[in-house]
Amino acid sequence: MKRSNRLVALTNFFLENPRQHTQLPYFVSNLETTKASVSEDLDIIDTVFQKEGIGYLQRTTGAGGGVQYIPEFNNGRNKAFINDLCRKLEDPVRILPGGYLYMSDLLGDPKTVREIGSVFASSFSKMDIDVVVTVATKGIPLAYSVASFLRVPVVIVRRDPKVTEGSSVSINYVSGSSRKIQTMVLPKRSLTEGSNVCIIDDFMKAGGTITGMINLLEEFNAQVKAIGVLAEADDEEEERVVENYTSLIKISNVDLKEKNIDVHPGNFLTNSMDGN
Amino acid sequence: MKRSNRLVALTNFFLENPRQHTQLPYFVSNLETTKASVSEDLDIIDTVFQKEGIGYLQRTTGAGGGVQYIPEFNNGRNKAFINDLCRKLEDPVRILPGGYLYMSDLLGDPKTVREIGSVFASSFSKMDIDVVVTVATKGIPLAYSVASFLRVPVVIVRRDPKVTEGSSVSINYVSGSSRKIQTMVLPKRSLTEGSNVCIIDDFMKAGGTITGMINLLEEFNAQVKAIGVLAEADDEEEERVVENYTSLIKISNVDLKEKNIDVHPGNFLTNSMDGN
Repeated sequence: MKRSNRLVALTNFFLENPRQHTQLPYFVSNLETTKASVSEDLDIIDTVFQKEGIGYLQRTTGAGGGVQYIPEFNNGRNKAFINDLCRKLEDPVRILPGGYLYMSDLLGDPKTVREIGSVFASSFSKMDIDVVVTVATKGIPLAYSVASFLRVPVVIVRRDPKVTEGSSVSINYVSGSSRKIQTMVLPKRSLTEGSNVCIIDDFMKAGGTITGMINLLEEFNAQVKAIGVLAEADDEEEERVVENYTSLIKISNVDLKEKNIDVHPGNFLTNSMDGN
Repeated sequence: MKRSNRLVALTNFFLENPRQHTQLPYFVSNLETTKASVSEDLDIIDTVFQKEGIGYLQRTTGAGGGVQYIPEFNNGRNKAFINDLCRKLEDPVRILPGGYLYMSDLLGDPKTVREIGSVFASSFSKMDIDVVVTVATKGIPLAYSVASFLRVPVVIVRRDPKVTEGSSVSINYVSGSSRKIQTMVLPKRSLTEGSNVCIIDDFMKAGGTITGMINLLEEFNAQVKAIGVLAEADDEEEERVVENYTSLIKISNVDLKEKNIDVHPGNFLTNSMDGN
């Protein structure tokens, strides 16, 4: 196969299989070429991926050595995406009765969901995550997006047990906003004991739901390595019960009378800028 | 930019933006090259995409002409994937009390979910779908996967209204298996009147849930163009109320005593083979 054709095939392979460690002989045989040629192909792809800001190829040498695509998106791209999201959310037509914000259109767009996932995955890339956990319903697409970049499975916590999932572990917790006692359920089969977990959700106010998830995950001896929420609401009346989390945006004021919404970047940007 | 670098950048662009129509001057300017060179690049990418069985580049000429990547995966690849899924589901450790099958591990794997979506999207590629509709919870990841290939949004039907989604339309329907009256809700804002809809769900028995969705969608004057279910259960006692649907697999017998499960390819394979 010619270099030009190999580059297209290899680029497709890496994008479809992020974080999959592959040995060079696999490519040599599949692409009918030499190890030296594959090696040069990988250099070209690595250069372009870095230039495009979508990550890099990580190569290991020696016996069992190979290559994997690490999807770490660069800060400039992430910052532009978050600022764009803030502008979209500030549109006053989003204001719903009760001071809530309509976000289903953004969460319903697969491309936006994929970008949100890529931002979180870049942030959690080096945390050795085994599984992404979310709670039904709105966090689900975000969780899959993050998990696809981290190459780990998704586990969904439910509010009610389902007969199609077998025996479950459940906990009760007090919801932050409604002060009601709620239930969370996780099928026993779904999570291996002692897993490194990343929690993903769409929205956090006081953090009651996430605290509930943390408590439920303790029953599985899981380590919560990272918490990512798309939007956090800044509510001065309520104290936040969750401390270490990453938010992409912060909704600080929904003024029903003036039809005004204040949306700012969340702590993701400030944190990642420090580290850059 | 050199051809080799351009090919990597362009391949990434097309895979990230399926069905997005882009005019050639965009590439000419972004890649700092000539129209003739871009045109040759597109020929190479089209050839490799077709060889890999992941679709093709569709080009239109004249004013406003351009190119888009149509992700239609070939039947050989789809068939191999479905047969592999059948083998995985036949494992007797999946049998749960009540004759249900544990499938959460497969539905929790982002790569499997992406492949399921690519199969449906290949099948529905020419149907002019405007939106993918699913019902919470398990169909959600599948719906996003299909939608990402079709480049359309996802709308999620819920069992209960949420205050964060504004005013809603709801219907009651009789569940096929439990014979109970259930509710389905769709926020008014979420679906444009008269949309061409594709319904996606993970599992269908008699089809009560999908009939409920069809009834709810009638309230929005939607046209149901396609129905895709991952697994259908063959139940001789119950008559199926939904007729035109595409299933990837068919579970025909779960024998609790003998610990035996019969899983076969669904009607997707027989239908697509006819058309090939």
